[in-house]
Amino acid sequence: MRFSLTILGSSSALPKPDRFTTAHVLNAHERFYLIDCGEGTQIQLRRYKIRFSKIHHIFISHLHGDHFFGLFGLLSSFNLMGRKVPLNLYGPEKLKNILDAVYGNMGEKMNYSINFSPLNWQDKQLLLETEKISVYSFPLDHKIQSCGFLFKEKKQARNLIKTAKEDYDLGIKEIIQLKNGEDVKRDTGDILSYKLLTNKSFTPRSYAYVSDTRYYEPLVDHIRDVDLLYHEATYLEEMSSQAQLTGHSTSMEAARIAKMAKVKKLVIGHFSTRYKSTAPLLEEAQNIFPNTFAAADGMSFDVEKY
Amino acid sequence: MRFSLTILGSSSALPKPDRFTTAHVLNAHERFYLIDCGEGTQIQLRRYKIRFSKIHHIFISHLHGDHFFGLFGLLSSFNLMGRKVPLNLYGPEKLKNILDAVYGNMGEKMNYSINFSPLNWQDKQLLLETEKISVYSFPLDHKIQSCGFLFKEKKQARNLIKTAKEDYDLGIKEIIQLKNGEDVKRDTGDILSYKLLTNKSFTPRSYAYVSDTRYYEPLVDHIRDVDLLYHEATYLEEMSSQAQLTGHSTSMEAARIAKMAKVKKLVIGHFSTRYKSTAPLLEEAQNIFPNTFAAADGMSFDVEKY
Repeated sequence: MRFSLTILGSSSALPKPDRFTTAHVLNAHERFYLIDCGEGTQIQLRRYKIRFSKIHHIFISHLHGDHFFGLFGLLSSFNLMGRKVPLNLYGPEKLKNILDAVYGNMGEKMNYSINFSPLNWQDKQLLLETEKISVYSFPLDHKIQSCGFLFKEKKQARNLIKTAKEDYDLGIKEIIQLKNGEDVKRDTGDILSYKLLTNKSFTPRSYAYVSDTRYYEPLVDHIRDVDLLYHEATYLEEMSSQAQLTGHSTSMEAARIAKMAKVKKLVIGHFSTRYKSTAPLLEEAQNIFPNTFAAADGMSFDVEKY
Repeated sequence: MRFSLTILGSSSALPKPDRFTTAHVLNAHERFYLIDCGEGTQIQLRRYKIRFSKIHHIFISHLHGDHFFGLFGLLSSFNLMGRKVPLNLYGPEKLKNILDAVYGNMGEKMNYSINFSPLNWQDKQLLLETEKISVYSFPLDHKIQSCGFLFKEKKQARNLIKTAKEDYDLGIKEIIQLKNGEDVKRDTGDILSYKLLTNKSFTPRSYAYVSDTRYYEPLVDHIRDVDLLYHEATYLEEMSSQAQLTGHSTSMEAARIAKMAKVKKLVIGHFSTRYKSTAPLLEEAQNIFPNTFAAADGMSFDVEKY
């Protein structure tokens, strides 16, 4: 039951051969959630051996090209490869117009349906709930409307201790009750204690994706205590006025948000192409939030069960 | 005065990390002509160190995504990098609608103008004429409307022999006359023979790009005697019915066209991802047209002066 993030692209607006534009993929229990889809995402998925057929949900944070220009090729490739299962797409309302215009003018008919859900720019919004995870969007502060996304594992049922079933001849209903943290009262008057017969399952894990944004404290409430936070860090602090102007964050600002939100690990990315090395960006963040990592294409971050 | 083709993408519809989708760039006298623009073309341009600022003309053969999905990112990057000089874009009429819809819905305003010229699907058409080259389109036979492109160097003026200017005290007008192959009659009655005072310049060079098409003999007239022919070769001959069905050519068919047109060199590409190696495709073509090469990303073909 993995909960693991892979970086597919870590550059800001301009891609380079070794740093594509933004795309992340979260593996939650072998379901793959694609988060933003910069140009060449389908190539990166192949490079890092992530099967297209495992992707059922794509989340687009905002309508700057470096966050969605890979969608055209990926959706076309799904089609070409014979996809029939629906795709769930979450993004800015106008993304739907764009896709309709592109494929309409091309005369390309998709052989699978695309269920489109527009983002809410005002409030935190529940986008998706499966048996395993919940996904929320929350507003950011960029030059155009932009959202972050929060992926939270659901609380897992408790684990039955190995010998309990045999020792007490437990029925299915009794097992479910115990795993849900309820004591079982038998007709005989015996009480089976869930505390004795089950162990707590692992703590639900979480990943927050903070896409393009200025330093924006209101987002802290949405990402508090997450295991893994990605926060864009386009510039060094010495470029803070440029960051403000272009709607981006500095590495120091990303770290401050991580610290305030008491997250466990921070990954910074979306680096301006002006930086030949990410070392200064990383150092600046680590001075404030030591457990920081600099994203690179192909890098994975596993959140272990605890 | 180079005349050199670089392959930026050599895969058919589905890109792979080592083979991007179709894009070629022709360097004619240090002007770079981009021919088709599959996803990731801007990344390949950077990888092969071709400066964006040297591109003034882009030619799109047809509206299948693997031939133009890289355009969105490239045009946006031009913008971001401060381009002011106009871009000339040649392609299917609906490409204009697509670009307008994408950038319109994104709210992205280009700070340079895009001069768009629609392709003609019926006849050979002169698209562009500069001092150095002429570019034509010609119709192909694909599943949708598709064009090939022919790049022809212009006939160059003759070269003055080294000592002529000094020996005969030539004026500028006289030099131009001689270089244009005209004898000069002086007021003194002397006649200066262009044959004696100039040498023939090199033979104009040519490159023909045959994009997605079925085997289509009418195109032979348009590409006769070219120095370098690129012809798509998606399949091996054993897949000829599949080629027919999907509007593509086999390697053998590409070679037959090259032979009929008496071209000097053939490059095949747009290989189906089913082929792990291009060796069988190359062998099949070479059996008919020995001077054949299999395209690979980053490969360059110089046409030497002769």
